[in-house]
Amino acid sequence: MRRAIELARTALGQTSPNPVVGCVILDPDGVPVGEGFHRGAGHMHAETEALASAGARARGATAVLTLEPCAHHGRTGPCADALLAAGIGRVVYAVPDPNPAAAGGAERLRAAGVPVRSGVLRAEAERGNELWLTAVRRARLCVTWKFGGSLDGRSAAPDGTSRWITGPAARRDAHALRAAHDAVLVGSGTLAADDPQLGLRHGVAGRAPLRVVLDRGGAIRSDARVLDDAAPTLVAIAKGADRPRIPRRHEVLELPSADGALDLRALTDELYARGLRSVLLEGGARLAASFAARGLLDRVVGYLAPLLLGSAARPVLDDFGASALADGQRFQLDDVRRLDEDVRLTLRATPLPGEPA
Amino acid sequence: MRRAIELARTALGQTSPNPVVGCVILDPDGVPVGEGFHRGAGHMHAETEALASAGARARGATAVLTLEPCAHHGRTGPCADALLAAGIGRVVYAVPDPNPAAAGGAERLRAAGVPVRSGVLRAEAERGNELWLTAVRRARLCVTWKFGGSLDGRSAAPDGTSRWITGPAARRDAHALRAAHDAVLVGSGTLAADDPQLGLRHGVAGRAPLRVVLDRGGAIRSDARVLDDAAPTLVAIAKGADRPRIPRRHEVLELPSADGALDLRALTDELYARGLRSVLLEGGARLAASFAARGLLDRVVGYLAPLLLGSAARPVLDDFGASALADGQRFQLDDVRRLDEDVRLTLRATPLPGEPA
Repeated sequence: MRRAIELARTALGQTSPNPVVGCVILDPDGVPVGEGFHRGAGHMHAETEALASAGARARGATAVLTLEPCAHHGRTGPCADALLAAGIGRVVYAVPDPNPAAAGGAERLRAAGVPVRSGVLRAEAERGNELWLTAVRRARLCVTWKFGGSLDGRSAAPDGTSRWITGPAARRDAHALRAAHDAVLVGSGTLAADDPQLGLRHGVAGRAPLRVVLDRGGAIRSDARVLDDAAPTLVAIAKGADRPRIPRRHEVLELPSADGALDLRALTDELYARGLRSVLLEGGARLAASFAARGLLDRVVGYLAPLLLGSAARPVLDDFGASALADGQRFQLDDVRRLDEDVRLTLRATPLPGEPA
Repeated sequence: MRRAIELARTALGQTSPNPVVGCVILDPDGVPVGEGFHRGAGHMHAETEALASAGARARGATAVLTLEPCAHHGRTGPCADALLAAGIGRVVYAVPDPNPAAAGGAERLRAAGVPVRSGVLRAEAERGNELWLTAVRRARLCVTWKFGGSLDGRSAAPDGTSRWITGPAARRDAHALRAAHDAVLVGSGTLAADDPQLGLRHGVAGRAPLRVVLDRGGAIRSDARVLDDAAPTLVAIAKGADRPRIPRRHEVLELPSADGALDLRALTDELYARGLRSVLLEGGARLAASFAARGLLDRVVGYLAPLLLGSAARPVLDDFGASALADGQRFQLDDVRRLDEDVRLTLRATPLPGEPA
């Protein structure tokens, strides 16, 4: 299963609206005779790829899967049927499919007399597919907020200087995080202040995420770096605002707004409907506070430097309306990692009722 | 050496003005035949204790020490002489003695023909004795600032609620940290807001640290919990301020003040002169900023909860005058540890010229 999870991870950030899935086929002696992973929509499913590599050795073998095999006809046939057709003798998987349209694969296999075991290394497999699972379970885009700051929660000195608070290892890691998401989002404040390009650098490979800019008034400059051709860009403006002039390869999306702010839920719903499953909020204390105020933060990744800046410096997070401790947003601590002189903390939202703990 | 470091650690917080020291005696086959550690001023030195437990087996044996054996006549004779008298065949130690009055032990042993090796597991031994080494090298009190806060650097919600931001494991750990210091210090703001007792709880054993209160105006209430009989308390007031009425077992110390604030360097010098080597600043965003502004922070221990509070909440650290990134106080990341749902980060000041990296 460890190998299957590792295979799945290979395609992180590349498969939406589909999940990442890894599959290993073991012969009756436990020797691997085939493996595969899902490379993205329109490509083979992990099971099909693994069965193809195993060939006739799949007969009577065990299929080890990170996710329950699907039972629905999408662009490809149901994987449960493919496993049956190949004569698989036993199926072991980690995580049940939370997608109502695709679930039922285990049932179908059992009905055909194939023993099925669920839940093997589930926590590890959940983690490897966390963005997609969170999105599908909540039926909306999974939102990760990423920030870098000092130990006392400051993202820039009072004069605005912030290069560099965190070191090269943290910045490289943040780029890998970007690559694992389907979209990356900044507000107009960050756009105006930093003119970020939001592409993949630091040797990170893979499909570059969709760049999304919140630009209520349509004030984006046509020479903004985010409008280069490194990746597609979506500029979200308020309904009725002047449409900015941007290169034709990019898109302008009109969103409803309320109280002078774009409707973030409308945005995340629209992106979800387009097949995206995850978005990374990059910087912007105000942007993050807007998402927090709407209860839309699913994950937080903080890079903390061993630095103190004091309270005149700029906060990593603006006010989102918490006036008592009970109004604060409490998460679960998912992971802590040292990155040279910096520390990365990863938080995940407390599971909702019905979600695994 | 690992065992010697472990022995030394047993007495952390109990030995000032002396360091913690551990000693193991190994016979020529490498079998431990004696061990000891320094229990505090007026007690035997680690070497003497270890030699006593080894008896005649010390002859020709190797003494393994966390710190260079002393060469001076204090309350006890020079340990270098004691080692020679016991017929020790070889001496291995981790850290050279930075105390000019006590150093020279290695020299004396070598002069007597005993092979001496220095620097074994030095980094680990340095860490086990860090407060004392920092103090003696800088010839002033070693100052640790401890705080608990949210990931975004807030110590209380806007309405002042802060119980509990961090969990029980972090709070227990903070008490162990208190026990490792010779003194614990709060400002009058924390005193008025929280009425802390500052004793040892949570089953932490050992000599309770001196409680120090910065109370410029002498406004402390005679029924303040910090004035109970759990430990001695020092109330620092400004020269010429009204002397507060406090129980006779405690002490009032007059300090010079400048710009409306007590002279912190005068305070740390006075405590150092009294034989204290370390102080823990507990809470107080303003208190910590005052020490930071004077460049007096040697170590920072932050307990971070997986919580967001937003910028209307109270900052863990006040302004200390940093207006650009270069004015920030940068430390080395010493340690990161998960404590249930919280994370403890330990920072140490960048070494000064001449100090080990």
